Amino acid sequence: MPHIELDNALPGMAGLMNYRPETGRPLSELTEVLLRGPSDLTRGERELIATHVSELNKCKFCAGSHGAFAAAQLPEDYEHTPKMVALLDIATAVTDSGRAVTAELVAKAKENGATDVEVHDTVLIAAMFCAANRYVDGLATWAPDDPEAYQRMAERIVPNGYTSIIGIS
Amino acid sequence: MPHIELDNALPGMAGLMNYRPETGRPLSELTEVLLRGPSDLTRGERELIATHVSELNKCKFCAGSHGAFAAAQLPEDYEHTPKMVALLDIATAVTDSGRAVTAELVAKAKENGATDVEVHDTVLIAAMFCAANRYVDGLATWAPDDPEAYQRMAERIVPNGYTSIIGIS
Repeated sequence: MPHIELDNALPGMAGLMNYRPETGRPLSELTEVLLRGPSDLTRGERELIATHVSELNKCKFCAGSHGAFAAAQLPEDYEHTPKMVALLDIATAVTDSGRAVTAELVAKAKENGATDVEVHDTVLIAAMFCAANRYVDGLATWAPDDPEAYQRMAERIVPNGYTSIIGIS
Repeated sequence: MPHIELDNALPGMAGLMNYRPETGRPLSELTEVLLRGPSDLTRGERELIATHVSELNKCKFCAGSHGAFAAAQLPEDYEHTPKMVALLDIATAVTDSGRAVTAELVAKAKENGATDVEVHDTVLIAAMFCAANRYVDGLATWAPDDPEAYQRMAERIVPNGYTSIIGIS
């Protein structure tokens, strides 16, 4: 049971964004730009970084939903490139602490072809999911058990984007 | 030295928001609503929560700047109320993990008069500063040593708000 009365029955982040749309709206706009706007990383790669951090933080709702969004947007034969391995290592460090991101980790990503924008976006995505995971679990929101529930979220979010979360019921 | 070429000499979050205004703009709008928009908590109290988390995460830029913004907006004879002590305990838990926020911590805050919105805003502020601290330090941005530099930031941010950060030089 959530720690506060949410006045809606939506799970995870959707429940929180609709409980307090004053903050939910700019948060959904930031998520839209960060995960779906112009970037040197594909939408699927950015969702993978979000999923990786959410799994490290053991956030069931965020890992389930962004894992479904990643799967829906990556090619079927997707395998990590050396660049993505290095960027995921940076995301792992961010999950621990900002100061855990060493010059060596960044150099390895750049040697494998990462641009400054890719390093930037990786750090910001990882940092923002450290926030999202804490927000969702810190207020004890509920998360579906059924994998199909996350599939249905992907069917709405992938074509319509994150700002479509505000106002759903 | 920052891990990436920022194309500006601004410190901390200001350097990052202006390096990538696509994400900086919605991030500044979210910060504006969260720390300065309508809430049951005063602006000074919200800046205190931000400062507390930034100190726990040892983020020099965020602790220095938000500490100055808190000091500029709290009454001179400010002392923590029991409600604020309980909300800061929730923020400490969020800094560790979302799952560290127990029903007992939330019950203690409510017994001391905290509303659902205050609990919500405390969790979201603490979560967002876990992100801001990781973003600022994960890209190795610089932070001024001189306390007067943070005073000057307060003189700009307190009257003009966070969206004024985009486009400064």
